[in-house]
Formats: sequence, structure tokens, C-alpha cells
Amino acid sequence: MISAKRVPIQFHSATLLLTIDLIGTFVFAVEGASAAVQANLDILGLMVLGFATALGGGIIRDVLIGAIPPNSIRDWRYPAAAFIGAAVVFLQSSFVNRVPAPLITTLDAAGLALFAVAGAAKALDYNIHPFLAVLMGGITGVGGGTIRDVLLARIPSVLRSDVYAAAGLAGAIAMVLALKLKLRPAIATTLGIVVCFTLRMVAVHQHWNLPRVMKH
Amino acid sequence: MISAKRVPIQFHSATLLLTIDLIGTFVFAVEGASAAVQANLDILGLMVLGFATALGGGIIRDVLIGAIPPNSIRDWRYPAAAFIGAAVVFLQSSFVNRVPAPLITTLDAAGLALFAVAGAAKALDYNIHPFLAVLMGGITGVGGGTIRDVLLARIPSVLRSDVYAAAGLAGAIAMVLALKLKLRPAIATTLGIVVCFTLRMVAVHQHWNLPRVMKH
Amino acid sequence: MISAKRVPIQFHSATLLLTIDLIGTFVFAVEGASAAVQANLDILGLMVLGFATALGGGIIRDVLIGAIPPNSIRDWRYPAAAFIGAAVVFLQSSFVNRVPAPLITTLDAAGLALFAVAGAAKALDYNIHPFLAVLMGGITGVGGGTIRDVLLARIPSVLRSDVYAAAGLAGAIAMVLALKLKLRPAIATTLGIVVCFTLRMVAVHQHWNLPRVMKH
Repeated sequence: MISAKRVPIQFHSATLLLTIDLIGTFVFAVEGASAAVQANLDILGLMVLGFATALGGGIIRDVLIGAIPPNSIRDWRYPAAAFIGAAVVFLQSSFVNRVPAPLITTLDAAGLALFAVAGAAKALDYNIHPFLAVLMGGITGVGGGTIRDVLLARIPSVLRSDVYAAAGLAGAIAMVLALKLKLRPAIATTLGIVVCFTLRMVAVHQHWNLPRVMKH
Repeated sequence: MISAKRVPIQFHSATLLLTIDLIGTFVFAVEGASAAVQANLDILGLMVLGFATALGGGIIRDVLIGAIPPNSIRDWRYPAAAFIGAAVVFLQSSFVNRVPAPLITTLDAAGLALFAVAGAAKALDYNIHPFLAVLMGGITGVGGGTIRDVLLARIPSVLRSDVYAAAGLAGAIAMVLALKLKLRPAIATTLGIVVCFTLRMVAVHQHWNLPRVMKH
Repeated sequence: MISAKRVPIQFHSATLLLTIDLIGTFVFAVEGASAAVQANLDILGLMVLGFATALGGGIIRDVLIGAIPPNSIRDWRYPAAAFIGAAVVFLQSSFVNRVPAPLITTLDAAGLALFAVAGAAKALDYNIHPFLAVLMGGITGVGGGTIRDVLLARIPSVLRSDVYAAAGLAGAIAMVLALKLKLRPAIATTLGIVVCFTLRMVAVHQHWNLPRVMKH
């Protein structure tokens, strides 16, 4: 039987988890706001895309599992972190542009790993079936980027490019399987995060892509 | 007074309804995944579009009428049917391409009819006003295809092409009116499905289109 | 402490608020349906875009703050007002085209002001943090137009053009600050509406735009 206890809180202290979560939110907001700059949007567009990219995935997950109002509407620190991220892009865009790409990729992979695994863990807490909890983890990890791309009127990058959502799902699956094998929640969560992060980083460096169907 | 009893369950046995519902889910997932292949997406894109097309309409309806978590998050068989549909497209795309177009059109019309009428019936069960229950039926029938098209960054086909959503609404209206005329739920539901299916099939073969405003 | 009482009802009589709200819904529906005509959609597309533009913002807000089913699903008069607006566009498109642009701009600014301030007030009623209540006000004001633009496969105009969402946020902020300063709810609400409306109208006439980042 899957544990229905609050997995993320047992993973570390609640304070540490919140800190990591807010850092992930900040990183995703920076990415969303940077996409807004590329699309020539104004400061409000930066803010909206920062908010949507950072919090959209978690909001969709919370609505679907019945955790309403979503966490990021209940707790002002999440949108605050998102808006700080967007504000940094607006005020310091030349600095943001100088951040080395490998660092951004690494932070983004870390954010994906944490969001996907924590998202699946939260779904389990709400008594969602493990198969669906994995999907909820995937949605938490990539939902924000998907909303960002929809708002920019383009096909979401997670649907067409390399191993991104797949890494999030793999991390969530690893955590769920580990829980099924009776590993302790803290270990299972750590394992899931490591699997997702590693898979994502290797995929980036090896230019892995998922198979696709040849068009006829 | 509109009956607040579980209309679909009285329509036939619950097992038969579930079977039909899962077949509809499978058919819509095949269509969504096929659209992903046309757009050159990878296997994950196939899965996402299959899931979204098959389950998106019901999820939106359930969130709007307050049936949270949505049915397809509560019951793993719905996403399973969707993913099997998408997997068939990935593994057997040449076979899927050989399925005769009229068969696909017929299955799709059947899926639309069932989703629209069952969607309206479920809304009535949740004490939604009949006028809005009809809209919920329409959303159930076309919501998934709309999300699919939004993810593919194109104007949803239901907004611009022929009699599709209109057939779904007509079926839902027929069912609601029949209930108002005190017909038994099973008869009303069957009538709604027949109206939607027939209207859709005739519209396809007669190339019917809805009127539009001349642009100035 | 922010008042948790029903601010909009104290603003005026409930009947007056409902009347104004329905007028705003009607105006936004006319705009959404007109956009559908421009995109050459059929009558169903007009109806869908009318509904989405008029009610989408309030629906998103209600789902996020936990007011489920959303108001416009609970009360048939909201979708009725939206569909009447869309029907007017379909039946009298030449008349709609003759409405002077300044009148449309003024009505639209009034609708935005009411939706944004009433949206923030409703969020406060649901014990949402004032910072997030302001965001909920902004979403109420511009969410419908955003969905309309997403369905038309284009970047939402609120993300890129002049002072629109910003005016909605300003009105919501003014109301929240006034409440913090212990002004009576009716005064605070009126102040918020006046701030939003005035800012929007001045911005239109002065061609104000928000700052944006120079692309590198």
C-alpha cells in the first residue's frame, strides 16, 4: 500500500523543502520572463509569463487532485518568488543574459526534478492512484512551460523536444516504485529526484530524443 | 422538474456504460495521437495529445460542475484507455492509416454523441440548470479536441468547421427536452444520442455548414 | 485586517450589482463575438468566443479561489447575457459595426473596472491574501480576453498592448489599500472602479504603453 503520509515533509524539514520549492519557482519564473522578453512583451507580459511558467503546473495539479484553492493561491510566498524572478529579468536583463547556459540548464533540471517528484508525492497524499499520481507529477513539472508556450501561440516545447517531460515522469515513476518496494519516503523521494535530474542532464549532453513515427 | 437521479446508470447497466465510455475514450485518444503524428511530435507528444483529446472535455466539465477530482483522475481505467489508444497509434501507425475514413467518422460521431449526452446528464445530476447542463454536454463533447488544437497552436476546428459541436448541443438539448416531457431517463438519453449521431453523420455526408456573418 | 464581508453586496444593492455585472458580461460577449466574425468563424464560433470572453475570467477566478461551481455555471443569467451579446453580433452585425469606437472603448473600460474590482473583492471574501486577491482581480478582468485570443491562436493582446491589465490591477490595488486604510467597503470599491476606469481611458487617449526590455 502506498503511504498516504506527507512525503515531501518527511523528505527533509518543511523549511528546507519550502526553500527549495521557492528557488525552483524563482528559476522557472526567470525562464518564463526571459521568453516574454524574446517575444517583445512589456513588463506586464513578463510578470504574467513568469507567474504562469512558475506556478501553472502546480495550479493545474492542485485543481485536478482537489486541493483547492491551489497552494500558490493560498500562500503568498509562491507568487512573490515568481514575481521577483520576473522583476529580476526586467531590471537586470543584461545580467540574466550573461548567466552561463549550462548553469541555467542545471537549475532548470533541478527545478523539473523537484516539481515532478513533489507533484507526484502530493497527489499520493490526496489518495490519487499511483498511475495517475505519476501523471500529476509530470503535469507539475511541465504544465507551467506548456501554458507559457500556449500564451506565446506556439506548440509547447515539451511536446516536441528531447527528453524533458519524460525525465519528469521517470523521476515520479522511480519514487512511486520505491515506495511500493517499501523504501522510506525520504529515500524514495531522493531517488526520484536523482533519477529525473540525471536523466535530464545526460539527455541534454547526449542530445537524446524520443522516438517518433515516420510520417506517411 | 428535471430528475436529479444518475441518468447514465439508468440508461443501461453501469458496466455497459463504462464499456461504451472507455471505447469512446480510446477512439478519441487515437484521433488525438494521430494529430500528434501529423504534427511530427515524439511519442510523449502522442501520449499527451491522446490523453488531452480523450479526457480533456470531461475534465473541464467535472471541474466546472464541482465534481473534483474529475472522474478520469479518480478512475485509472480512463487514462489507461487513452494511453492504449495513443500507444496503438505509435506502434501500429501504418495500420491506423489503413482504417477506412468512413469508419473513423462513424466512431467519432458515436463518441461525440455519447460524450455530449452523458456530459449533460452528469451536469443535471449535479443540480446544474438545464440550460447550462446543455453547455456542459457540448464542452464534454468538444473540449478535448479544443485542447488538442490549442496545444498544436491552431484555431480549434470545432470553432470553424461544419456541424460538430452543434450536433453535440442538439443531442444534449434533445435529452433535456425529453426529460422535461417526462420521458424516462433511458429513453431521453437514447434519443439524445440518436439525434446527435444522426445529425453529425448527415452533416458530414451533406457537407452542411453553419451560417456565418459576411465580413465587412 | 481586511474585511471578510461580502464587499460587492455592500457596495450597492445586490440587484444593482447584478445588473451592472450582466451589462459587463453582455459588452464583453459582444467584443468576443466580434472577434470571431473577424476570424471568419461560424455562428457557433461566435457563441463560444462570446461565452469565453465574457465569462472566462470569472470562471478561472472562481476555480482558483475554490468557489465551485463557478458563479456563471450556477446562475443561468450570466451565460444568457453572454449568448444574447453574441446573438446580437450575429443578427445585427452591421449595426454593431456602426457603434462608435469611443463608445465601445468606454463600455469596455467600464466592464474591465467592474470585473477587476469585483473579482478582487470576491477573492477577499474567500479569505485569499490581499496580494493574491489583486491578482485574482486582474485575472477576472483579462482572463476572458486571454482565452479568446488563445482560441484564436494568437498571443493574448493583454500581454503586449498598452495599459489594460495594468489598469485592472491598479483598480484592485486601490480598493485593497482603501480597505486597509479602514475606508468603508462601498467607498473602497467605488474608488477602485474609478481608478481603473480613469487610468484605462487616459491610457487609450494618451497612447500610453508599459515599458519593455530592449532585446539584445
